[in-house]
Amino acid sequence: MTTTTITPKTTFDRVESRVRSYSRSFPRVFDRAVGATIYDVHGKAYTDFLAGCSTLNYGHNDPDLKAALIDYVSGDGIAHGLDMFTDAKQNFLVAFERYILKSRDMNYHVQFTGPTGANAVEAALKLARKVTGRTNVIAFTNGFHGVTLGALAATGNGKHRGGASTPLTGVSRAAYDGYYGPDIDTADLLERDLSDPSSGVDKPAAIILETVQGEGGLNAASPEWLRKIEAIARRHGALFIIDDIQAGCGRTGGFFSFDGMGLSPDIVTMAKSLSGMGLPLAVTLLKPEHDIWKPAEHNGTFRGNNHAFITAAAALEKFWADHAFRQEVESKASYLAGRLSAIAEQHDLKVKGRGMMIGVDAGSGERAAEICKACFAKGLIIETSGSFDEVVKILAPLTISHNQLAAGLDVLEDAFDAVLGMQRAAAE
Amino acid sequence: MTTTTITPKTTFDRVESRVRSYSRSFPRVFDRAVGATIYDVHGKAYTDFLAGCSTLNYGHNDPDLKAALIDYVSGDGIAHGLDMFTDAKQNFLVAFERYILKSRDMNYHVQFTGPTGANAVEAALKLARKVTGRTNVIAFTNGFHGVTLGALAATGNGKHRGGASTPLTGVSRAAYDGYYGPDIDTADLLERDLSDPSSGVDKPAAIILETVQGEGGLNAASPEWLRKIEAIARRHGALFIIDDIQAGCGRTGGFFSFDGMGLSPDIVTMAKSLSGMGLPLAVTLLKPEHDIWKPAEHNGTFRGNNHAFITAAAALEKFWADHAFRQEVESKASYLAGRLSAIAEQHDLKVKGRGMMIGVDAGSGERAAEICKACFAKGLIIETSGSFDEVVKILAPLTISHNQLAAGLDVLEDAFDAVLGMQRAAAE
Amino acid sequence: MTTTTITPKTTFDRVESRVRSYSRSFPRVFDRAVGATIYDVHGKAYTDFLAGCSTLNYGHNDPDLKAALIDYVSGDGIAHGLDMFTDAKQNFLVAFERYILKSRDMNYHVQFTGPTGANAVEAALKLARKVTGRTNVIAFTNGFHGVTLGALAATGNGKHRGGASTPLTGVSRAAYDGYYGPDIDTADLLERDLSDPSSGVDKPAAIILETVQGEGGLNAASPEWLRKIEAIARRHGALFIIDDIQAGCGRTGGFFSFDGMGLSPDIVTMAKSLSGMGLPLAVTLLKPEHDIWKPAEHNGTFRGNNHAFITAAAALEKFWADHAFRQEVESKASYLAGRLSAIAEQHDLKVKGRGMMIGVDAGSGERAAEICKACFAKGLIIETSGSFDEVVKILAPLTISHNQLAAGLDVLEDAFDAVLGMQRAAAE
Amino acid sequence: MTTTTITPKTTFDRVESRVRSYSRSFPRVFDRAVGATIYDVHGKAYTDFLAGCSTLNYGHNDPDLKAALIDYVSGDGIAHGLDMFTDAKQNFLVAFERYILKSRDMNYHVQFTGPTGANAVEAALKLARKVTGRTNVIAFTNGFHGVTLGALAATGNGKHRGGASTPLTGVSRAAYDGYYGPDIDTADLLERDLSDPSSGVDKPAAIILETVQGEGGLNAASPEWLRKIEAIARRHGALFIIDDIQAGCGRTGGFFSFDGMGLSPDIVTMAKSLSGMGLPLAVTLLKPEHDIWKPAEHNGTFRGNNHAFITAAAALEKFWADHAFRQEVESKASYLAGRLSAIAEQHDLKVKGRGMMIGVDAGSGERAAEICKACFAKGLIIETSGSFDEVVKILAPLTISHNQLAAGLDVLEDAFDAVLGMQRAAAE
Repeated sequence: MTTTTITPKTTFDRVESRVRSYSRSFPRVFDRAVGATIYDVHGKAYTDFLAGCSTLNYGHNDPDLKAALIDYVSGDGIAHGLDMFTDAKQNFLVAFERYILKSRDMNYHVQFTGPTGANAVEAALKLARKVTGRTNVIAFTNGFHGVTLGALAATGNGKHRGGASTPLTGVSRAAYDGYYGPDIDTADLLERDLSDPSSGVDKPAAIILETVQGEGGLNAASPEWLRKIEAIARRHGALFIIDDIQAGCGRTGGFFSFDGMGLSPDIVTMAKSLSGMGLPLAVTLLKPEHDIWKPAEHNGTFRGNNHAFITAAAALEKFWADHAFRQEVESKASYLAGRLSAIAEQHDLKVKGRGMMIGVDAGSGERAAEICKACFAKGLIIETSGSFDEVVKILAPLTISHNQLAAGLDVLEDAFDAVLGMQRAAAE
Repeated sequence: MTTTTITPKTTFDRVESRVRSYSRSFPRVFDRAVGATIYDVHGKAYTDFLAGCSTLNYGHNDPDLKAALIDYVSGDGIAHGLDMFTDAKQNFLVAFERYILKSRDMNYHVQFTGPTGANAVEAALKLARKVTGRTNVIAFTNGFHGVTLGALAATGNGKHRGGASTPLTGVSRAAYDGYYGPDIDTADLLERDLSDPSSGVDKPAAIILETVQGEGGLNAASPEWLRKIEAIARRHGALFIIDDIQAGCGRTGGFFSFDGMGLSPDIVTMAKSLSGMGLPLAVTLLKPEHDIWKPAEHNGTFRGNNHAFITAAAALEKFWADHAFRQEVESKASYLAGRLSAIAEQHDLKVKGRGMMIGVDAGSGERAAEICKACFAKGLIIETSGSFDEVVKILAPLTISHNQLAAGLDVLEDAFDAVLGMQRAAAE
Repeated sequence: MTTTTITPKTTFDRVESRVRSYSRSFPRVFDRAVGATIYDVHGKAYTDFLAGCSTLNYGHNDPDLKAALIDYVSGDGIAHGLDMFTDAKQNFLVAFERYILKSRDMNYHVQFTGPTGANAVEAALKLARKVTGRTNVIAFTNGFHGVTLGALAATGNGKHRGGASTPLTGVSRAAYDGYYGPDIDTADLLERDLSDPSSGVDKPAAIILETVQGEGGLNAASPEWLRKIEAIARRHGALFIIDDIQAGCGRTGGFFSFDGMGLSPDIVTMAKSLSGMGLPLAVTLLKPEHDIWKPAEHNGTFRGNNHAFITAAAALEKFWADHAFRQEVESKASYLAGRLSAIAEQHDLKVKGRGMMIGVDAGSGERAAEICKACFAKGLIIETSGSFDEVVKILAPLTISHNQLAAGLDVLEDAFDAVLGMQRAAAE
Repeated sequence: MTTTTITPKTTFDRVESRVRSYSRSFPRVFDRAVGATIYDVHGKAYTDFLAGCSTLNYGHNDPDLKAALIDYVSGDGIAHGLDMFTDAKQNFLVAFERYILKSRDMNYHVQFTGPTGANAVEAALKLARKVTGRTNVIAFTNGFHGVTLGALAATGNGKHRGGASTPLTGVSRAAYDGYYGPDIDTADLLERDLSDPSSGVDKPAAIILETVQGEGGLNAASPEWLRKIEAIARRHGALFIIDDIQAGCGRTGGFFSFDGMGLSPDIVTMAKSLSGMGLPLAVTLLKPEHDIWKPAEHNGTFRGNNHAFITAAAALEKFWADHAFRQEVESKASYLAGRLSAIAEQHDLKVKGRGMMIGVDAGSGERAAEICKACFAKGLIIETSGSFDEVVKILAPLTISHNQLAAGLDVLEDAFDAVLGMQRAAAE
């Protein structure tokens, strides 16, 4: 089997760009995946606690989604139609309207942007600037919104920002909920900045945020803080944008991460798990009164991925037609929180996040990396998050079975014990 | 049938963003497509001379690509794996290396960017700035490189630029080949600008161009001019980037639009027809010496679309393992050029473009729109291009049969006659 | 006398731009001034509590400075010599070195920028970017650094920022000392931002601030806070720039506003009272290790105003050869603080500022404007400051006699009583 | 006398910034100047063919201007009054209106900006953006408009641009008259760019230019070309700005460099010789319909330099009350042109420029530097201009006597002979 392992390595080393990243943490060649399990070319099974960074909320190759796609392709369904009307798009819109918008009494237009989260964010920021006639945007510490130039300006991560190799403009930074510790309400700071005409923080076109910062360290904002921020946006004439790319599609329980919080964002960006099966798809939801785009003003070849429409519509119908899935996620999230709290308590660490977007701050990036490495050696794929990659982050498929979840958490618990025990030993 | 027509309209009108564009030219709901034919939900067949703006060079649902995809999905092949190593990615890289790079004696690293052309361009510009430590980029009049903020700065189209609603920075504009008429060699103007330290045109990180400007009016640069531009880039320490997103993948005959021209771009961006079946996929090809990315410095959820790898590898093997396809395209291109020349001559118009990326300048956007509308009424899907949308552009699948191509051109010829005849009549 | 009043008004109305501002508050034509008194063309005397916004710290037409200038001009001293060596420049440098730098054990190079404060700030920011290779600059809420595009980006005032009519770039905003109330140490917030690689606040080339914000509302930073900010700059590799344009030249007691605070800024900008007599002059003081300018890299026609060198050297010798002047200023400042505290206490208001750069927050811009108007009616020229122009600001010449100062304060006290009494009456 | 020479050198070396430039070409300490003669501290006289880069068009210390200034200062005239109404300002406006505007049937508002040319340009660009709601500005190859960030973006010189150490934005570059050789009308190229909505050159707020490029190599635009550019500005809704800072105030004959050309710029910037005596003063002339500034929207401490108003008004009356001075300048310019043509012909070189802003392209910066050095050794102060500092530029005071001008030109002629003769010898 050695040969097989070597050959692929050689190809990747020879031809793939050095920018590749996850393949460094998980140096295996994978070929097949079902549910929460992913297999390498040698047939070894891994439990997937990464799930495409929340792109596979319904697991790998869900049988119903898969069947719908095969059926569509077999029948010569349109794969690519630019942004023309297709039956597949219509069915997706019908499902999205029925299962998502109507039940929440939400009224939004759906913009099909290029099929990346960054593209949805670019569209959102452009539109907010167009609507308000302003150029500044407020984004938050540790926020992640993508790496194309417009979205990257809103992203906090220094490595990604540095990748631009040119100054990033158009964004003023504000502190996320809790960023300056529990005694400072950062929403009040922002309100102070925006209500002072000489603060030097220009009136914004938009305030953009994630309700839980997936890449930024699983910081979860409180509903109260989010409502204050929305009110600040309204008061100062800015659009309120929720970037629900990582936290949406059930990851925190509801379809939207802000379900039930009494929020009414002007724009919502979605991608990742929207297609349900990991296919590229991104949308920007717009309140109709803001939908002042001229035709094709924001365009792109792959806006509207018909294969993704098929799987997305199937996923909406399967998981969001009633409350069962949400309750299942909440139940798992509760179990997950209990297990992680125990781990955290054991090692005097802190649990972070919300719903099934939760993790443990290991105290340092080195530790977190060792823990993830130890997990991988035991067949568990798991990654880190945070300014210093210090948070071990669990992003299991929401559909994972209780047993597989529990078993994965056992591996994780052992890894914490092993690494932090060792570190304690080394320190003594 | 009225009911069916009305219902979808209602859904789209109610829920889809006003930014939609092609559905305005072709107000039908399509559901199925094979080869060069696309069907609406009433079963009416249309010949597709748009081909996803050159995304469907091998036609809709090529049987071999489709079979490979169904096979992969049926076997629970990984749909989404972030940028981890997968068997599908490896096979794509092996095929790309074998059929494309090696036979051309090209040595490039393949960066899987987010699956949009704009994302590939963003990566290219970021890397060029990183490599050179400069920030300025030279882009050309009428160039189109995408609408995310970094790429949009390089795009010439005023409507798209205006969509940013904020100034676009980091790009100096230069005139494309022939832009100032036949007597002025615009490469000489650029050389003058860059060799004068007080011209005010800052030394660029990169010069980026399309060899044929697909959106900009089918302007085709001469090989001599392209070689001069490459030499200018070299002389002034800039990277030479060819954006082959629309013109690549056989559209002009060779796999690369610059095949056989003696060019050696530092970076090449590709997307559109790369997956072969219209699935979202984009790559940036980098000369290895420029591949100084840090891991994940440019990242994204959907970089590396495994379904697209499957169809792309199949397409490479099917169409690029030998010269047959290229010769077939060249033969069709020759026929096409003859037919269009006849139309142009008849109406005293001008043929533009190269290979199967060719069209007729109808003299005004209004005329071109009428012609396209007349074609659509006769079952031919065709679109315009150019600063004033004045060029009727033929982007038929390269695999279209001679008969279907001829029949489509008959429709087009009639439409020119009808519209220009009518206009003459109206003028008289 | 009516004729005289009308004619000038007519000229100004006819020919001067609508951008004029102070002439709106003080609609008289002035022609002569001595010490703290300024006369209009009808011979009416006004006490000047504005002093050219701290440009006339030594009063109008100080007899010694005036004599030196007349002497120089009479002897055909060079008025303009670009930045060539002149005797006048040499004498200024000798005096500056002797009376200012040496006695403080400071080692700085003097850069003669264009003779405006904004130009000195532009030079400072350019150099900081050149030295560090970074582009971001930290500036503070309510800071004022000028209105040319580079300096304006650092200025907080919304009206001035809006005047650019284009986005201002290159500056991240931080909160000044006390900006978020007494319980929040804003230096800690900045430290948090800069020590988090994912905060989204890029590592700065410089941190620029005023020790007292002259235009921003007479906010005075504490020495402890200033030292923390300097330490933060050092820790994060940024240059520490003090903009001493309004607070310098004795306004707060010492020649530099930061004298005796244990600070060692990398760059200091000076202008306003530097020439001593109101003549245009600005300098940027640079630590020698940062003086990496290429010859003429920052240039300008009027850098080095020789008439101003003459009066500046005379002023340095007259006022800064020993401690007498400083003590005189401190004594007046103490008297001033007492009088303003009494006014503030009477009306339940707050005193703001430091040294002879002090005022009373009248609670609203309308009130402050009425108070200033009432003063002017009684022959006192005084202006406002602050985000809402709510602070009545005393910037009397430092050389004002005790009697004239006291008499001016009597007028001011009456004006507060009249306006706030009236407002109380109106409210009752 | 050695001591005197050494001491100053030491002071300058110790305390003045390395950015100093002209003192490198003329390493003497000067102390006195009259007319076209400047004296160093040893009493050695130099003829001044630099004249403060056209700041001393009326020579050093003109007796009438000097007398007016001494008179004003002696009478305690206001030196600094912010932008309040003063008698001095009024007299200047009256004179400017009478001698300059009315006789030309021009109707402009005068904005007193900070007293640097750069500040006047910053004001002009800000206002053009405010008036048009656009942000792009067209500036030309080899243009020089100052080095503060907004003006610097419009400046072509690479060394100055590099000094920003951050990307310069908001300006698109166009080619100046003749830039691409005699066969290409660059106005036509600009018209092509601006009339194509997809050129990628955004519709500009303004087109800014010098009629003769003083720093850029004495390139003189033809009246026809200037009229075409003005027409282009009008046609595309842009303001037409003439930067007359170096070429104005009689340098090319008329008070404005564009006198008699049939031009009607929307904005004119002036500085340098405006005060008549080398004192800092700058204005921006605005057509009244564009004067939409809010009060103080563009402000600054030294806007309105009263000493400069005195000398400026005296200069306007002395030199511009009738046509005598203009005729005198034209006569000298004609003599000058003849002498330089002879020199150029002798060495097969090219004369550049217009009026008394004229020079000889020496073929290389090295040669030009040697020529200037040789002149200085013979008591003639003269400098270079151009992309490569290749043009030896004569900017003598316009008031220079025929004899002194002739003698200076003799020195210059000898220097050309010596340097170019030597070079020929060296080459042989």
